[in-house]
Amino acid sequence: MMDNGMKLYVVGFGPGSANMMTLEAQTAILESDMVIGYTAYVDLIKPLFPGKIYNATGMRQEKDRVQMAFAAARQGQTVSLICSGDSVVYGMAGLVWECSEAYSEVEVIIVPGVTAALSGSAVLGAPLTNDFCVISLSDLLTPWEKIEKRLLGAAMADFVVALYNPASSKRQDYLARACDILLKHKSADTVCGIVRNIGRNGEERRILTLSELRETHVDMFTTVFIGCSETKVIQGKMVTPRGYKDV
Amino acid sequence: MMDNGMKLYVVGFGPGSANMMTLEAQTAILESDMVIGYTAYVDLIKPLFPGKIYNATGMRQEKDRVQMAFAAARQGQTVSLICSGDSVVYGMAGLVWECSEAYSEVEVIIVPGVTAALSGSAVLGAPLTNDFCVISLSDLLTPWEKIEKRLLGAAMADFVVALYNPASSKRQDYLARACDILLKHKSADTVCGIVRNIGRNGEERRILTLSELRETHVDMFTTVFIGCSETKVIQGKMVTPRGYKDV
Repeated sequence: MMDNGMKLYVVGFGPGSANMMTLEAQTAILESDMVIGYTAYVDLIKPLFPGKIYNATGMRQEKDRVQMAFAAARQGQTVSLICSGDSVVYGMAGLVWECSEAYSEVEVIIVPGVTAALSGSAVLGAPLTNDFCVISLSDLLTPWEKIEKRLLGAAMADFVVALYNPASSKRQDYLARACDILLKHKSADTVCGIVRNIGRNGEERRILTLSELRETHVDMFTTVFIGCSETKVIQGKMVTPRGYKDV
Repeated sequence: MMDNGMKLYVVGFGPGSANMMTLEAQTAILESDMVIGYTAYVDLIKPLFPGKIYNATGMRQEKDRVQMAFAAARQGQTVSLICSGDSVVYGMAGLVWECSEAYSEVEVIIVPGVTAALSGSAVLGAPLTNDFCVISLSDLLTPWEKIEKRLLGAAMADFVVALYNPASSKRQDYLARACDILLKHKSADTVCGIVRNIGRNGEERRILTLSELRETHVDMFTTVFIGCSETKVIQGKMVTPRGYKDV
């Protein structure tokens, strides 16, 4: 542990409401002089923690954000770099470690948070009560061929799948392409669920089959769940049993 | 929404410390008259929330616990059924929905929490900053053949893998068996990490290769992480990059 006061928290704040943050995440932001994040995330957090210095940058400026955070921490400010959901799962923590060698005097503390696979599950019922995969459909940073291979592996091994970034304005047909791959090894009747604006105003949920999902338009605020062969609908909820009932 | 006051919260309380619970989880337990859970979890939570009625039962008594919870809720008590980590991921939420049809007058509210894949990641560095799988090595409720198929699928598709329940007194060699399957498609040098007692007294972490992991003894308080082909060690941390640095 370093005690020079140079501290950088990488904070996963969950879906965006105060009650879905951990106390550790709240304490980190309260203790910070400066809060840095993607514009949309700063807009969510600013009203909850007034009186901080906020620095927001746009998408694709992740490296600038991390370097700004380290530079401020090195000047003696306590900094929170904020991520929605968890700070590791498609968050900034990996990049922070990649850049950390140039700022070794700064203490880095990773603060985990409730990622959309978990908060979305709670809305849908209990889709992830057995082995599961999390896959992002964004091919900005991962080649599409690798994403296809992971979808195919997940379908062959009968995992429940949570899809992040299922669409964007430039990737309108990616969810349909993903469904086509999953349909090679999963039944068209597989129970699926979509959740939009988890834990925020306008939260929406829908349960549907994999073949219906293939024809469904979703946006970047949506998380998609595809069941395994055991997933079923109980009382309108998407539920993957784990066998406890038969013990 | 029902308003008869019959409420059952299924609460994921995270690793066990108060500061890693969400405010929503804390509020649910504070609002409850009765808290029900597995003995070891009740021991963790009881000191944090004195003045509640606690009911603890042992392992393999999941169905009893759920029925006790529904019965108490139907009698007008507000009940929290508690799970470590998340309430859906290998938690009680699935079984609650399976039993819910007999208690349709009780309102069920699933409260998500920080599962060990996330809290363990924060301790190790950032292993899950790309697509990942969560697999339990317990074959109490899932046939070992199915677990093997998932390990193989995960290795073939180059996922990062988080292993839950990697061992028990009766399953001493399961981690070695899992490593043998992963080694069919992952390099012996693959970066791995183990975390024990996450967020609790005596927390331990270790970073090692997949071939070293194969020879390592772990217990049921341990979560195991196996990297993908891109995972590396940076400043003693296990980090899976996501390409932001090269943008």
